[in-house]
Amino acid sequence: QARDTEFNAAVSKGEYRHFMLKEIYEQPSVVQRILEGRIGANGLLPEAFDAKTVELFKTIENITIIACGTSYHAGLVARYWIEELAGIPCNVEIASEFRYRKIAPPKNAMLLTISQSGETADTLAGLRVALDRGFVSSLTICNVPGSSLVRESDAAFMTRAGTEVGVASTKAFTAQLVSLLLVTLQLAKTRGYSQAQEVELCNDLHKLPAILSDALSMAAGIEHLSAEFIHKQHALFLGRGVQYPVAMEGALKLKEISYIHAEAYAAGELKHGPLALIDEDMPVIAVAPNDELLDKLKSNLEEVRARGGELFVFKDKNADFTDGEGITLMDVPHVSDVMSPLVYNIPLQLLSYYVALIKGTDVDQPRNLAKSVTVE
Amino acid sequence: QARDTEFNAAVSKGEYRHFMLKEIYEQPSVVQRILEGRIGANGLLPEAFDAKTVELFKTIENITIIACGTSYHAGLVARYWIEELAGIPCNVEIASEFRYRKIAPPKNAMLLTISQSGETADTLAGLRVALDRGFVSSLTICNVPGSSLVRESDAAFMTRAGTEVGVASTKAFTAQLVSLLLVTLQLAKTRGYSQAQEVELCNDLHKLPAILSDALSMAAGIEHLSAEFIHKQHALFLGRGVQYPVAMEGALKLKEISYIHAEAYAAGELKHGPLALIDEDMPVIAVAPNDELLDKLKSNLEEVRARGGELFVFKDKNADFTDGEGITLMDVPHVSDVMSPLVYNIPLQLLSYYVALIKGTDVDQPRNLAKSVTVE
Repeated sequence: QARDTEFNAAVSKGEYRHFMLKEIYEQPSVVQRILEGRIGANGLLPEAFDAKTVELFKTIENITIIACGTSYHAGLVARYWIEELAGIPCNVEIASEFRYRKIAPPKNAMLLTISQSGETADTLAGLRVALDRGFVSSLTICNVPGSSLVRESDAAFMTRAGTEVGVASTKAFTAQLVSLLLVTLQLAKTRGYSQAQEVELCNDLHKLPAILSDALSMAAGIEHLSAEFIHKQHALFLGRGVQYPVAMEGALKLKEISYIHAEAYAAGELKHGPLALIDEDMPVIAVAPNDELLDKLKSNLEEVRARGGELFVFKDKNADFTDGEGITLMDVPHVSDVMSPLVYNIPLQLLSYYVALIKGTDVDQPRNLAKSVTVE
Repeated sequence: QARDTEFNAAVSKGEYRHFMLKEIYEQPSVVQRILEGRIGANGLLPEAFDAKTVELFKTIENITIIACGTSYHAGLVARYWIEELAGIPCNVEIASEFRYRKIAPPKNAMLLTISQSGETADTLAGLRVALDRGFVSSLTICNVPGSSLVRESDAAFMTRAGTEVGVASTKAFTAQLVSLLLVTLQLAKTRGYSQAQEVELCNDLHKLPAILSDALSMAAGIEHLSAEFIHKQHALFLGRGVQYPVAMEGALKLKEISYIHAEAYAAGELKHGPLALIDEDMPVIAVAPNDELLDKLKSNLEEVRARGGELFVFKDKNADFTDGEGITLMDVPHVSDVMSPLVYNIPLQLLSYYVALIKGTDVDQPRNLAKSVTVE
C-alpha cells in the first residue's frame, strides 16, 4: 500500500477530471504496450514467453484460476477462451472461497492467479494452499514486478498497465484480459491451434487498440444516457457466454462508484428467479454482440420488455434490433467474437463513470473501498 | 407442464395459508422419506445404489454439475462435499452457459444434472451436449420419475420430495441436498472414506429431520423480524464456504417472492466492491454457523457495522456473538459442519415467506415466474 501511494504522487490526472477517466482513455495505448515485443505480424514472438514457461504450459492438463473482484471477472472471461481455443479444462473460483475449502485438485493442474497488485491477501494464500494440495505449477497475471505473487509463482506474465490510481479498476482489467489472451494463444499453439488461426488472432489483436478508441467515442452518447440513471437505485446487467463476466464487471463498476445496486445475471437464468424483480424501477442493461447467442438474448430481452422493464442494449452497430418504447439501443463498434469482451467492457466503464458523476460521488475514492485488499 | 397441473389439483394446502409454507414444513418428513431404505444405522444400504451406478461411480475422476436456479445452488453446495469427502475434483456451472460454450471436458468426467422437474430445457440440452463432447457418464438428481433427464441419463437418483406447488422451490432444494449427500457418500466409500466416517455421517443424517423441525420453530421469531423488511428494497446476503450457496439461495427466495432486490456475496469478496453499497438502507443478512470460518466472517461483519449497515445474523445458538445496536442475532440449532447448509437454509426460507406476506405478494405464484422452465 505504501509503495502504491508513493507511486501515485508521481502520476498526474493531466487534462482529465478524474484518474478513472484518464485510465479509461489510456486503454488503447495499454493494449499496444502489452503487445509490443510479444506478437508480430504472424504470431507470438519467441520473447513473449521464456523457455521454462513454454515447457510448463506443455505438460499441464487442467487450469484452475483464482482471483478476487475485477480480476475474478477477467478469469471468468479467460475460461471461455482457454477451453475453446486451447481445449484445456478450466475452472475459476473466488480466491477467498478456494483457500478455505478442502480442495481436490484435478490431475496435472496449473494454478493461475490474477491480481493487479500481486499482494491480494486471499489470492496469495490460495496460491500457497494450492501448491500444498498438489497443483503442479503456478502462473500469475500481475501488474507489479517483484510483488509477492510474482515472486512465489513458477511463472509470471506482466500486464504492463502502469500505475492505476482509480480504486475502481479499468485499464488493469483490460490489461489482464489481453494478457490472458496471449497466455491462451501460447497454450493453444501446442494443442492443435493452426498457424492460420494464430495469424488471425494476432491480426485481431493488432486491430484492437483502434477498435477500443472507436468504442471510447461512445462517451458523449453515454454521458447523455447517464441522466436516465440519476434516480435509479437498482440495475440488472445481462449477458450470455463470454459477455456474462463482462456484465458482471459492468455491474461491479456501477456498484463501486455510483452506489447503485447493480447485479449481473447470465441471461438464461432470468426465468429462474430474477424476472420477478422486473418492473419500471429496475432498468436492464444488456451486452449484446452480434454472435450466435444474439437471438437467444433477444428473446430474453423481449420477456423483460413485456413485463415493463426499461432496456438499455449495447449492441453491434451492424446488428438489427427492433427499436421502440422502453428500449434504448447503443451502437458498439463491430468486433470479432474473441475480442468482444474487451470492446463491450468500454461502454460499461463509461456508463458507470458518467452515472457516478451525476450522482456526485467521489469517483476515484469510492466510500468504504481501498485500492488493494492486502488483508483479509 | 400439463402433467404438473393435473398433479397439483390433487394436492391440498391443508391447514396452511400457502403451499409454500406447507412445503417448508414438510421438509423433515421429506428427509425421512429420502433416507428410507437407503441408509441404516451403520451406513448406506445396498439398495441405495444399483450395481451399475456403483460401478460407474468407481471409474470417474472428475465431476461437472450443471443446473439452473435453485438446483444450481444445490450443486454449488455439493461441490464442497464432493471435493472434501470424496476427493473428486468438481465444478459447477449454470446450464444455459455450459450448453453454449465450446467446453473442454476433464478426463473421465461424469456430468451430474440437477432438476426438480427433469424437464428443464437448458439442463437437458447441456446433458446432450456433454455426451457429444466426451463426458463418460451422466447422473441426474431429479424429482420426477420418467422425466426426460431420468430417461436420458445413465443413472438417476430420485429425490422423493413429492409434488411441489409453490413456484419458489423449498422442499425440492432440501431433497436435492440430501440426495447429493448420499451420492457423495457412495462416491467417498470407494475412495478412502472410512467405516467410522460413514457411521458418523449416517448418524448426522438420522438426526437431521429432528434438527430441521427445531429450525422450523424459529418461525415465530422470524415472522416478528420480517416487519423490519417492509420498507426495504435491497438486501445483501453473506456466507462463506458451504454457506455461500445457502446465502445465494436465501437471496433468490427473497427476490422471487418478496420482489426485494437481494444479492448474495461470498463474505470474502465484500472489500472488493459491494462494501461501497453499504448504508442504512441496505440490510445485511449473514449465515454464520459455528465453524472454522466464523472469526473471518465476524471480521467481515464488523466492517459492515462500522459503515452503518444493519445486520441480521443467523448464528449457532452456542456461538458467542457481540450484541449491540444495529445487529439482530437469530439463534439456529447447533448442527455439524456437513449438515449446516440444510439447517441454515430453513430460517432463510421462513424469512422470505414472512417478508412476502407483509409485502402482500402472491406467495405461491410470484409475478413473471413459472414452476418449470421447459423452454429457453
